[in-house]
Amino acid sequence: MKIDDLPIRDELRGQSPYGAPQLDVPVQLNTNENPYPLPEPLVARIAERVAEAARHLNRYPDRDAVELREGLAAYLSRTTGFAVTREQVWAANGSNEVLQQLLQTFGGPGRSALGFEPSYSMHALISRGTGTTWISGPRREDFTVDLDAALVALREHRPDVVFVCSPNNPTGTAVAADTVLALYDAAQAVKPTMVIVDEAYVEFSHRASLLPMLEGRPHLVVTRTMSKAFGAAGLRLGYLAADPAVVDAVQLVRLPYHLSAVTQATALACLEHTDTLLGYVERLKSERDRLVAALRDLGLEVTDSDANFIQFGRFADTHAVWQAILDRGVLVRDNGVPGRLRVTAGTPAENDAFLEAVATVIKEL
Amino acid sequence: MKIDDLPIRDELRGQSPYGAPQLDVPVQLNTNENPYPLPEPLVARIAERVAEAARHLNRYPDRDAVELREGLAAYLSRTTGFAVTREQVWAANGSNEVLQQLLQTFGGPGRSALGFEPSYSMHALISRGTGTTWISGPRREDFTVDLDAALVALREHRPDVVFVCSPNNPTGTAVAADTVLALYDAAQAVKPTMVIVDEAYVEFSHRASLLPMLEGRPHLVVTRTMSKAFGAAGLRLGYLAADPAVVDAVQLVRLPYHLSAVTQATALACLEHTDTLLGYVERLKSERDRLVAALRDLGLEVTDSDANFIQFGRFADTHAVWQAILDRGVLVRDNGVPGRLRVTAGTPAENDAFLEAVATVIKEL
Repeated sequence: MKIDDLPIRDELRGQSPYGAPQLDVPVQLNTNENPYPLPEPLVARIAERVAEAARHLNRYPDRDAVELREGLAAYLSRTTGFAVTREQVWAANGSNEVLQQLLQTFGGPGRSALGFEPSYSMHALISRGTGTTWISGPRREDFTVDLDAALVALREHRPDVVFVCSPNNPTGTAVAADTVLALYDAAQAVKPTMVIVDEAYVEFSHRASLLPMLEGRPHLVVTRTMSKAFGAAGLRLGYLAADPAVVDAVQLVRLPYHLSAVTQATALACLEHTDTLLGYVERLKSERDRLVAALRDLGLEVTDSDANFIQFGRFADTHAVWQAILDRGVLVRDNGVPGRLRVTAGTPAENDAFLEAVATVIKEL
Repeated sequence: MKIDDLPIRDELRGQSPYGAPQLDVPVQLNTNENPYPLPEPLVARIAERVAEAARHLNRYPDRDAVELREGLAAYLSRTTGFAVTREQVWAANGSNEVLQQLLQTFGGPGRSALGFEPSYSMHALISRGTGTTWISGPRREDFTVDLDAALVALREHRPDVVFVCSPNNPTGTAVAADTVLALYDAAQAVKPTMVIVDEAYVEFSHRASLLPMLEGRPHLVVTRTMSKAFGAAGLRLGYLAADPAVVDAVQLVRLPYHLSAVTQATALACLEHTDTLLGYVERLKSERDRLVAALRDLGLEVTDSDANFIQFGRFADTHAVWQAILDRGVLVRDNGVPGRLRVTAGTPAENDAFLEAVATVIKEL
């Protein structure tokens, strides 16, 4: 029995599951993970908090994750200077699930979502998965958002949801606040439109978060994750901040008790160690800047990066370069952007190994 | 700003989120939770396994949850005598997410799902949430599935998915294997149809699991959960067993890395303590039988139960009886079945408190 022998939906026929190739390689710089393991005191605190939660595991978890949302709101308030309350915060299993809930609420069949590509491919995939028509908007040659072209796309397609990924995956490009404001206003002028700013990588940015723009903008949503800055990709904890009505609205579509008690306990433990984890972020920012400079010194074209990863090129045969780097024990990512590859900033030693591999590979091109 | 001021989907307007009322009451017998906390050695093992996982939490979890699926397959094989491999097993955040993935794959816009009501209300809700048309099929007066009427419904509505909940929530009714076989065959005779047998409560049943029926039936799916028999409602771990092609198919719609490393670690620890946990199940079964007998002795009409809960009645004013029982410190559930309430089997002391409350309340009717 094969997948296509089953009565699956027509649009799934011939597809394969999303996901980066998982290869066993010494230096893995392909999925934008944080290379620093959680510090041992945090590991111990997680074990403690989870044990506490496990003593009540026979009961359903807090359906509304109140304590966790309080902690996330406090984190956002402290790091952005913009006061956020728990009523403005919602959490789910990874920002993917947050985005899915938003699209189930504001997208879906008969509705459409616009994003500026290349961008995080799950925006398009989750849109399609929820029956939302996906509209691929343009970017400039340098991967910044072209406001004029974006406004044309907005007026032409009249989307229900607009995605702005800042810093943008896989290019690393941050979007200026006034660009987002202009997009937001222009979209509302056409019709009520939800504008979702995906800030998964914002802690690594030279620019400030767009969170303070929530003030007076009930159709704006900022999404975040603990996968990157908090070094907790394995935890699957994504969240959003928005008008409290948006938080109420996604509760109409969320699966009841979607967030386990162990996930809530672990996330709370991580929040207690925010300062240590943000210290790793500072290290990664300077490693990122070092990588950008070093790749440019090698004569490569490097997109400005506000994230913990870097897009570099150009290569006539991207796949061949990807493979040659892999042959030297370093796994990077081919996101399908013509002529470009993406590398995650790792530890200094990992980054050295990567730079050495690239230097060797481009000499042989 | 209110929900309805936002550009939410029309079908969500005026709705409120699903979920039992959460009230702070001494005896909570309303959500079919297992009343026995996990034993301390298991709590310690969870802390240990989670600490191990937390040391790699900066990395994404095993996307395919291979070790966990292996463990679940071993559990199913051992308890049913029917050999299941990990290729036949898939896991997600609660059986709700498993069902959502199945409906995204085999249901969705332009497709329909049939269930026999009253039944687990999430079948209808998740169907609607995925754009699948919900068809409410009939049950007999005694809440068993009426095969003849079911076959008529099958031929009339030609559903893409059929739900069979056994034991059925909220009635407690198990479905005979030959009824499911007849439904399966009749459905396939109309068109290729996925038949999902929801066995969330099967460990409490007098009847055997329908798992061995998977043999030679690629359109049959059995769903399970660790929320009830494993006493781990807070963990949110649901799973399915089916043809390996079904497992491949749901991976086309699952969000990547949907199952956190801490969830996988905790579930694996619980599986190590299966025997202890199944011991609690035996206690609950005899308490369930005691409750059924005691309620009948009180002159009430009690539906035969194969689950860890019991449907009882009949009452002219269900809400008044629910409230009167609550006033005596015991929370039961009004699932909207006319004249009936549902009570979860608790500890012997909790069940005594419930029986005392009911005895008092019905005297005053």
